[in-house]
Amino acid sequence: MKILIVYAHENPASFNGTLKDLAVETLTQAGHEVKVSDLYSMKFNPIAGRHDFTDLSGEEFYKYQAEQSSAASTGRFARDVQEEMDKVDWADFLLFQYPVWWFDMPAILKGWVDRVFAAGYAYGGGNMFDKGLLKGKRAMCSVTTGGPEAGYPDPDGNLMRNVQFGRLYFCGMEVLPVHVSFSAAHLDDAERQAYLDSYRKRLETIETTKPLEYPTLAEMGLG
Amino acid sequence: MKILIVYAHENPASFNGTLKDLAVETLTQAGHEVKVSDLYSMKFNPIAGRHDFTDLSGEEFYKYQAEQSSAASTGRFARDVQEEMDKVDWADFLLFQYPVWWFDMPAILKGWVDRVFAAGYAYGGGNMFDKGLLKGKRAMCSVTTGGPEAGYPDPDGNLMRNVQFGRLYFCGMEVLPVHVSFSAAHLDDAERQAYLDSYRKRLETIETTKPLEYPTLAEMGLG
Repeated sequence: MKILIVYAHENPASFNGTLKDLAVETLTQAGHEVKVSDLYSMKFNPIAGRHDFTDLSGEEFYKYQAEQSSAASTGRFARDVQEEMDKVDWADFLLFQYPVWWFDMPAILKGWVDRVFAAGYAYGGGNMFDKGLLKGKRAMCSVTTGGPEAGYPDPDGNLMRNVQFGRLYFCGMEVLPVHVSFSAAHLDDAERQAYLDSYRKRLETIETTKPLEYPTLAEMGLG
Repeated sequence: MKILIVYAHENPASFNGTLKDLAVETLTQAGHEVKVSDLYSMKFNPIAGRHDFTDLSGEEFYKYQAEQSSAASTGRFARDVQEEMDKVDWADFLLFQYPVWWFDMPAILKGWVDRVFAAGYAYGGGNMFDKGLLKGKRAMCSVTTGGPEAGYPDPDGNLMRNVQFGRLYFCGMEVLPVHVSFSAAHLDDAERQAYLDSYRKRLETIETTKPLEYPTLAEMGLG
């Protein structure tokens, strides 16, 4: 498979950095091709705005989402957005590595989603959920938390729903269950190693792991 | 009351801009003092990082959250962060105006939370939820959505929980129910006016509206 890792952590020596390095190593050894978008190193701009487009549509009233749709149909995305879309197009599998901050992605990664999963490119015109425009791809998140496991019962449901259901599946992707390293800043060596071992096993089985089951558009009464 | 409006929309002519202007006008007329953090106009940097601090703590291993705690105890936040903290300190009431993107805040506002609701300043050392460090303040969100109301049953629960419970209440604030303008981009004039009227009523009653009921730390078994 062709795998894009989207990685959001400032410190390469962090546990997030270690998990990202483990993924590159494990997936490459398994014969996959791997690219990494290291958002902090790239100084990725997370602010959505007019600078996302090489030219505007000319509509009198500027609407960001409408500009995205227009840009998608005529190829007018700014270079930094288009480069990420090219990587997404190339990839069969998207792997997100980030620390959970305030029950969601750090802003630098949230802004990657805002700008790259653009209307007309990743979804739109009734094409969402099982009809999303990134259909055929798979995705998975590997996250760390500040707090212990007890604070996050059913992480696939309560912690990750907005990301997994509302973003990845919304755009049509099959979503593998999240791998969570709880209390990442407070682990002893044995606990760190246990998370690295469990993550390596998840990485070695991404082709056979069963995706989360979500309802179709029709089942939600929207289709 | 002293009210800080944190506003995240690129286009002043948008419905979000109109709602923000309505809030400034209505709250001022009611005798409140109002300040606005207009994040797009300010070109607020949403990326959390070393630049958040005038000096680092000197710890060998750089950890962002630990640097926040250290900076909070010795006053070493960078100017853009400190200016927002000064406004939060000044305010009795925080009002957030933004469009819901991907079930959460636009990245420019998510990054405001990442950087301004810092460890040691807004929470930390066991001080969270009913013991959060912003205790005594109230907060409320006014949001717009792309989709219709049917897609968001129980907005205070399913749409806004991460923001209202996981951020505002986590830092100790009382949270008033969200005001949602659904399908903001597809309203006719009468529908727009109905949302403006209902929002004005909410603004006129912020001193008497009952906050959402959330469990205390002790009730969650964490205290």
